[in-house]
Amino acid sequence: MQKIVVLRWGHRVQRDVRLTTHVALAARALGASGFLLADARDERIKATVEKVVESWGGEFSFEMGISWKSFVREWKAKGGIVVHLTAYGENMQTSNVLDRIRNTGKEVLLLVGSQKVPKEFYSSDVSDFNVAVGNQPHSECAALAVFLDRFFEGKELSKEFENAKTKIIPQERGKKTIVNR
Amino acid sequence: MQKIVVLRWGHRVQRDVRLTTHVALAARALGASGFLLADARDERIKATVEKVVESWGGEFSFEMGISWKSFVREWKAKGGIVVHLTAYGENMQTSNVLDRIRNTGKEVLLLVGSQKVPKEFYSSDVSDFNVAVGNQPHSECAALAVFLDRFFEGKELSKEFENAKTKIIPQERGKKTIVNR
Repeated sequence: MQKIVVLRWGHRVQRDVRLTTHVALAARALGASGFLLADARDERIKATVEKVVESWGGEFSFEMGISWKSFVREWKAKGGIVVHLTAYGENMQTSNVLDRIRNTGKEVLLLVGSQKVPKEFYSSDVSDFNVAVGNQPHSECAALAVFLDRFFEGKELSKEFENAKTKIIPQERGKKTIVNR
Repeated sequence: MQKIVVLRWGHRVQRDVRLTTHVALAARALGASGFLLADARDERIKATVEKVVESWGGEFSFEMGISWKSFVREWKAKGGIVVHLTAYGENMQTSNVLDRIRNTGKEVLLLVGSQKVPKEFYSSDVSDFNVAVGNQPHSECAALAVFLDRFFEGKELSKEFENAKTKIIPQERGKKTIVNR
């Protein structure tokens, strides 16, 4: 399966700390390989994500402070494609856009923004595909989650995270964890 | 298909306004019938959700300030079941929990909390099912989105919202909306 890295655009340092943390943790839990907080730096988010990776395992890159423009340029230069999640794009339920993304066979940079993304995000200079997780306004965190779940065909939810110190044993009731220190 | 109402627990008025707004809008966009902000009131969230419903259409109830306990009690008295989303629950990918929920044929109250939910949420007094959208820590917004998408088998993304004043026409590039005033 193709690798996916999530680029979060439009983070506002005070206001969005919890939401962006959720986007980053959802990216990791649902199968993405890494996360870029573009055009912003936020040490609290970095600390939270690194702590989760340290404890719960797996490989997951975290970067911040790089401009979206230079990251997109490098990504394309290395042969990757760019997918922009937006309510205005092709509906992933009613179109074949997900198949077309898979058929490229290329690594995906997933742009996750907000309502006010730069107009360029929609252009072919930036995005190879504009994908809508439904054409209603909702949440970049929710849209990202559904996109990843469909892209990875659900398999990401049963993935083993290597070198985990903490692991949940799923059960019908209660909370069971194994902790290896 | 069974009706789903989302109960959001653990909202902190200053800190969580954006996140809870995202949870409520994701609930609406991904097929839930209503939302309860339990044990808290937040007029900004109410205003945002009502504005979205007014403009984008469809039926979606919004309530707040009711205690989770009395809402759950009433829900059960009316014959509904309660599903608690938690990373500790049965993994929806590796277990048959989703089928078992569907097979009840009953309306679902979906409890969406945080790490610190009351212990009772896990007990059979409250939840009929504890469901994990993967057993990794991530986001209640992301977990809700994946749960709804799988429960409604993707059909929610192509649903028409009645009496919409604003509607997006999905397309490969750019932003196209129809506005009826």
